[in-house]
Amino acid sequence: MASVYHSMSDADLDQELAQLEAEAEALRARNLALDMARGKPSREQTDLSKPMLDLLTGETDLTDGGIPADNYFAPDGLPSARALAAEIIGVDAAHVIVNGSSSLNLMHDLVAHAYALGVCGHDPWCTQGQVKFLCPAPGYDRHFTVTAHYGIENIPVAMTPDGPDMDEVARLVETDPQVKGIWCVPKYSNPQGCTYSDETVRRFAALKPAAPDFRIFWDNAYAVHDLYDTGDELLNIFDALAEAGAADLVYEFASTAKVTFPGSGMAWVAASDADIADIRSHFAAMRVCPEKISQFAHVAFLRDAAGVRAHMRKHAAVIRPRFELVERKFAEGLADLGIATWTHPRGGYFVLFNGPHGSAKAIVALAKELGVTLTGAGATWPYGNDPCDSDIRIAPTFPTLEELAEALDVFIVAVKLVCARMERAARS
Amino acid sequence: MASVYHSMSDADLDQELAQLEAEAEALRARNLALDMARGKPSREQTDLSKPMLDLLTGETDLTDGGIPADNYFAPDGLPSARALAAEIIGVDAAHVIVNGSSSLNLMHDLVAHAYALGVCGHDPWCTQGQVKFLCPAPGYDRHFTVTAHYGIENIPVAMTPDGPDMDEVARLVETDPQVKGIWCVPKYSNPQGCTYSDETVRRFAALKPAAPDFRIFWDNAYAVHDLYDTGDELLNIFDALAEAGAADLVYEFASTAKVTFPGSGMAWVAASDADIADIRSHFAAMRVCPEKISQFAHVAFLRDAAGVRAHMRKHAAVIRPRFELVERKFAEGLADLGIATWTHPRGGYFVLFNGPHGSAKAIVALAKELGVTLTGAGATWPYGNDPCDSDIRIAPTFPTLEELAEALDVFIVAVKLVCARMERAARS
Repeated sequence: MASVYHSMSDADLDQELAQLEAEAEALRARNLALDMARGKPSREQTDLSKPMLDLLTGETDLTDGGIPADNYFAPDGLPSARALAAEIIGVDAAHVIVNGSSSLNLMHDLVAHAYALGVCGHDPWCTQGQVKFLCPAPGYDRHFTVTAHYGIENIPVAMTPDGPDMDEVARLVETDPQVKGIWCVPKYSNPQGCTYSDETVRRFAALKPAAPDFRIFWDNAYAVHDLYDTGDELLNIFDALAEAGAADLVYEFASTAKVTFPGSGMAWVAASDADIADIRSHFAAMRVCPEKISQFAHVAFLRDAAGVRAHMRKHAAVIRPRFELVERKFAEGLADLGIATWTHPRGGYFVLFNGPHGSAKAIVALAKELGVTLTGAGATWPYGNDPCDSDIRIAPTFPTLEELAEALDVFIVAVKLVCARMERAARS
Repeated sequence: MASVYHSMSDADLDQELAQLEAEAEALRARNLALDMARGKPSREQTDLSKPMLDLLTGETDLTDGGIPADNYFAPDGLPSARALAAEIIGVDAAHVIVNGSSSLNLMHDLVAHAYALGVCGHDPWCTQGQVKFLCPAPGYDRHFTVTAHYGIENIPVAMTPDGPDMDEVARLVETDPQVKGIWCVPKYSNPQGCTYSDETVRRFAALKPAAPDFRIFWDNAYAVHDLYDTGDELLNIFDALAEAGAADLVYEFASTAKVTFPGSGMAWVAASDADIADIRSHFAAMRVCPEKISQFAHVAFLRDAAGVRAHMRKHAAVIRPRFELVERKFAEGLADLGIATWTHPRGGYFVLFNGPHGSAKAIVALAKELGVTLTGAGATWPYGNDPCDSDIRIAPTFPTLEELAEALDVFIVAVKLVCARMERAARS
């Protein structure tokens, strides 16, 4: 669809520009301070989990499967916590280690372990020359930061509505032994909100990596984060691996960061027998045991996968109106203009907005000027480098509905003004 | 003092041996299963902190210094938690990062950071050939495991009642740029229970390392773990550094592992401005923020350093009788025999037992046979190698007083029998 500004006469375009500049000026005068930058749950959402704090008292018997949660022991996590974690992602508890409150931390620790010490006895990545990670892009900036932190080369791979471009992934993984891993958010991907198709998951499971120490970092961050009763279905990667007769290929991660308390949830990793043994022996050198009182409280509160689903319906009731507001505002404000597209996720934490090439940095900067903080343009690409400068991640959960409505109105003015300015500049 | 067995006639020795073998046989028949192996608080001790679980409810306002403890934010830890941590070890809160539940994990992370990425922009240790760590020995096995895990060479350094042999430390640190760090437990050292003298602390602060990326890993694990109202006084290492005009030399660690809940306490690191900035930027790649609800609960429970001291007096009331029982049993059972010495700590978690050269492995094995598990002989030395095979770490806190009394009786029989057998073997 052609841009409405492109079809305007010079006079009409100038009039439109004047009108938009005036709108922007009026917004600037309001000194707004709104934030659509990060995927943080709102206060309404964190309040949903506060009843957890009533469940443990000084009288509570903290024994779990014979293990006192309030002392050392249980390096793999409490038995009940491992069972809950395993049920949520559909694996065997024996293949799960529950550790800490941050799945990103677990991902970091496994990258660091591979880099410094090596995966399952293979040479450390740091001794293998320049190693590489595939980064389906746009993607999650903090993933890319972890590998970049270790000097690992982040290689962008195109995303499609079905997940990463698997022809490209297979070509790179199966021919280049320097390719050691890939970052994936397979369900309600950050920032698109798309879910990998069964075919994509099967192609991941069927990969024959050139490097024996290649691993898929399968960050199932939004495993249970549906906005609607019927959510997207993600094929279980470990089932697909079994089907393909493969093993030792996937580290799966998840957490309750956006189920209970961000930063104070429980986080876990699942992997094959051999990989879990390797991870366990690394973790044994790192610390005596994980924090377990929080694990105990989480199990008391969430109980099982059904309990988690019931709890997530409460989250959905809070954030579904926010996502629907984004859709409505964008549809009303932008649909007829031919200048932008956006995704329509049925879960997760983000909407991906796609403006014209060369517009994203300008839109983010103008929105900032008008009082709305967005995720930095380019942040969703390795090294912050969006080659088309067109992707903007919209994070609608943290503001209130009212704030979000205002922020979206500002954003839409910014988009339109930047696009009209670009058209004007192209004509002069 | 000469061994009583050495002064016996052959006939007396044989009679004594027969008597001891009979005692051992009687113990073996009892099929005991007692554990004096690890420095775990007892149930009575962890119960002291369970009232903490009453302090947070679903109604609690979790805001701390304007920061919601139940959401992301506060990568350095909650303001109140940093203030508490700083007060406990006598530093400025701006120099403290509170993160996670395990100070060992923080130590690991800083070794790993230095190894893979380098300290403050210096070359990573992994690119500098064989690097080395000094290990005052006997010491804490898990320290030595961290550096050994990264292939760093652990070099034992002699311990004295005033701390490590500082002539040896200074010689190694100041002449060998491959020496990158030293493990210290400066107060109530593990396993001796001794506290570094002011002179030792000042000599640490005055070190002029050959390597610019040398750091002292100052694990102040037992900072507040006095058995008596008048505890050992440890000179503040950061005060000593200021006195010496030095900086960027010390990472200090502490935690509430043995104040509140082992494995589920709060842990922190303190360091100079430049070092904290370096640590902060590493941690920023590792995770969004630390677990903070536990930090909030700890501050609500412990409040301040005075609150910690009051709480630690309750711990002392529980474990002081255990330490005094060790002293009494050893004095009654071994003092006159000239075969062993032991330390007399006024705090911490351990007593160091010193038998004749070549006896420790045999004593630990025999005690095990008789139903008492001890810390493995040699475990307190790098690579498990006690050159004299004479050190045994006694951990009296976990068993009940009754169990401990039984375990010590068994241990004493094992010591005497091994020593008598050694004397007999020496004569034949």
